[in-house]
Amino acid sequence: MPVGLLAPHDLLPVKGVRLSATAAGIRYQGRDDLVLIEISEGSQVAGVFTRNAFCAAPVVVARQHLAKAESRYLLINSGNANAGTGADGIQDAKASCALVANRSHVPAEAVLPFSTGVIGEPMPIPAFEAAIPALIEGLDESGWMSAAQAIMTTDTLPKALSERVALSGGEVVITGMAKGAGMIRPDMATMLAFIATDAVLDAEQTRRMHIQAIESSFNRVTVDGDTSTNDACVLIASGQSQVAIDNEQDRVLFQTALDRVYRHLAQALIRDGEGATKFVEIRVTEAGDEQEALSVAYTVAHSPLVKTALFASDPNWGRILAAVGRSGIANMEVDRIHIDLGDVRIVEGGGRAAAYTEEQGQKVMDQDEIMISIILGRGDAKTTVWTSDLSFDYVKINAEYRT
Amino acid sequence: MPVGLLAPHDLLPVKGVRLSATAAGIRYQGRDDLVLIEISEGSQVAGVFTRNAFCAAPVVVARQHLAKAESRYLLINSGNANAGTGADGIQDAKASCALVANRSHVPAEAVLPFSTGVIGEPMPIPAFEAAIPALIEGLDESGWMSAAQAIMTTDTLPKALSERVALSGGEVVITGMAKGAGMIRPDMATMLAFIATDAVLDAEQTRRMHIQAIESSFNRVTVDGDTSTNDACVLIASGQSQVAIDNEQDRVLFQTALDRVYRHLAQALIRDGEGATKFVEIRVTEAGDEQEALSVAYTVAHSPLVKTALFASDPNWGRILAAVGRSGIANMEVDRIHIDLGDVRIVEGGGRAAAYTEEQGQKVMDQDEIMISIILGRGDAKTTVWTSDLSFDYVKINAEYRT
Repeated sequence: MPVGLLAPHDLLPVKGVRLSATAAGIRYQGRDDLVLIEISEGSQVAGVFTRNAFCAAPVVVARQHLAKAESRYLLINSGNANAGTGADGIQDAKASCALVANRSHVPAEAVLPFSTGVIGEPMPIPAFEAAIPALIEGLDESGWMSAAQAIMTTDTLPKALSERVALSGGEVVITGMAKGAGMIRPDMATMLAFIATDAVLDAEQTRRMHIQAIESSFNRVTVDGDTSTNDACVLIASGQSQVAIDNEQDRVLFQTALDRVYRHLAQALIRDGEGATKFVEIRVTEAGDEQEALSVAYTVAHSPLVKTALFASDPNWGRILAAVGRSGIANMEVDRIHIDLGDVRIVEGGGRAAAYTEEQGQKVMDQDEIMISIILGRGDAKTTVWTSDLSFDYVKINAEYRT
Repeated sequence: MPVGLLAPHDLLPVKGVRLSATAAGIRYQGRDDLVLIEISEGSQVAGVFTRNAFCAAPVVVARQHLAKAESRYLLINSGNANAGTGADGIQDAKASCALVANRSHVPAEAVLPFSTGVIGEPMPIPAFEAAIPALIEGLDESGWMSAAQAIMTTDTLPKALSERVALSGGEVVITGMAKGAGMIRPDMATMLAFIATDAVLDAEQTRRMHIQAIESSFNRVTVDGDTSTNDACVLIASGQSQVAIDNEQDRVLFQTALDRVYRHLAQALIRDGEGATKFVEIRVTEAGDEQEALSVAYTVAHSPLVKTALFASDPNWGRILAAVGRSGIANMEVDRIHIDLGDVRIVEGGGRAAAYTEEQGQKVMDQDEIMISIILGRGDAKTTVWTSDLSFDYVKINAEYRT
């Protein structure tokens, strides 16, 4: 049961971007598992990919193609990650691109491949071959919802959001979708996310705004600390609204809306995190620098003891304190540190806050959405990360599902 | 159910070291929870403590006392960690030492306090006061087994081992005990361990041999990556055998036996790790340097996805590969990496080994004790760490038990 997450609704088409989904039978039976996204000529496309050294074949090929040619198609499959597949995997990823390219009369480099699912299985290229004609046939600007469903693996709900932004030159639209529920952590945490806008952005604007939005969204969430081999996040700017962003006010308005879409999608990964029963925001403030803030935040977010206490709704501040203490910060002065659970001060001066009672802590922990605030008393830097708890169902899902 | 671990037997007394255990009612009812160890005059004592910045009050006090005076008593309680207790905790730890000191006519600094159990609760000093006379009364060289039982918290079995070592000057004895099953990771992983020998060691020998033995034992195990606030490991050399170690052959013989005791105790923590159903050895070889080997080993050992796959006896090499890939090694050449599961090669050249079959992998994973060997192809450095799997029971124990 996702925490505070509803199915997407009212997704807005983005002019210049058509989508199509079909059941190719790649691994799952009786559900869509292959998506094609067509991007109109003259669009800008920016991509950010996993930093895992064992990156999957489609990541290698997508990076190459993105650098070589104008991207016109994204081909996305679920059920098979085409990772740990060596030279054959690269060949298969290229072959799948060629299948789209040949039918669409574009160079193979204009097609970017994306895969998510089980690692180490060969790609069933004949299934792609059989499905691609119907996929091209079905391309439609209103295809976002079925595409968001088709890219799911252990997700229990599709994840997508639209925003309208009124700029000085007129209105533009942003629509994005993402998938992922496990093997989620920063350095491109999304598994897969695709966001499109009809705003007119140049290549540099697209790249810069994309990276800025990722920094405070996908790069600030973690379920289990495991960076996937297949993570990728793509921003498409079709320019079909004819509305450019050429003044500071419009830039701020647009970036804010973009951030909102990215953050919604990133948080949706956590809300639908494998076995999640809690949505947890960890805020670290008064850190010496951002790296320090991130170390503390992620040490707490990854602690199995903190995560099981969250699952148990146990206000076990001792485990939070122990995690902060082992986060590797040099010369930590423990008596300057405060920790709040929601709006309740639980730790001060290296121990339990004088006014704290278990009842106060229990009241916060009984909520589905919990805020842990750690005030280090060392400087001005801060960060926020989002995570989930560690439940029986996390173990069950990951003991039973073969990623 | 611990993995491949039996209750200790045939523990040998160490001349000059007497132990006593009693039920003080600190937290648990109807079981021993307070231990006193008396060390004869002229002994050497070396201590290594947690690196957690939020270290517990007894750790602060034990460090101070160890530096100030010859140690004559160790006072160890389970049930209450006296951690996160601020200035009151320090006062309580000192008070407990004073209680022993006053009755034994030694300075308070000759008593070292150790605590393990729940964080953030005040110490019930009256319980100590009531128990200490009987504790002193009961001191006996044969008290190791009851002491090993009394220091347990979520441990399901006591952990202890004895070794006899024949040196050129005669025979010496080593006996050690440890406790701990969760909040276990390097940088002093033990929670608590006490090892004693009747060999004649000087202060420098005691310190050096202690640290060397820790490096390949307690500092190479992890259950959940959580370093406790209370970890401590103490070596006592009473010298009462009158057998000194003054040649290289004796030094090697003695260090090897000491290493064996430490490694047995450290591995016992993992075998009895909370919810453990597997005992896993992770060997990293051909690393560029030891830090690199440790990064890879611990990234795999801490990966919740690898740990749940181990619980499921699933030969999911893709998750191992993904964990190796995200371990932060610069310029990792994935096609030079090999991974073996037991004696089965599962990964070569960045993908599944050509000759590998699922049946081979399954056969290894069905064992209780599993070896994962990662060959990096980058240099000559290597390391070995030991860990357990992530099971339903790990979540259950940590959702129900308040550390």
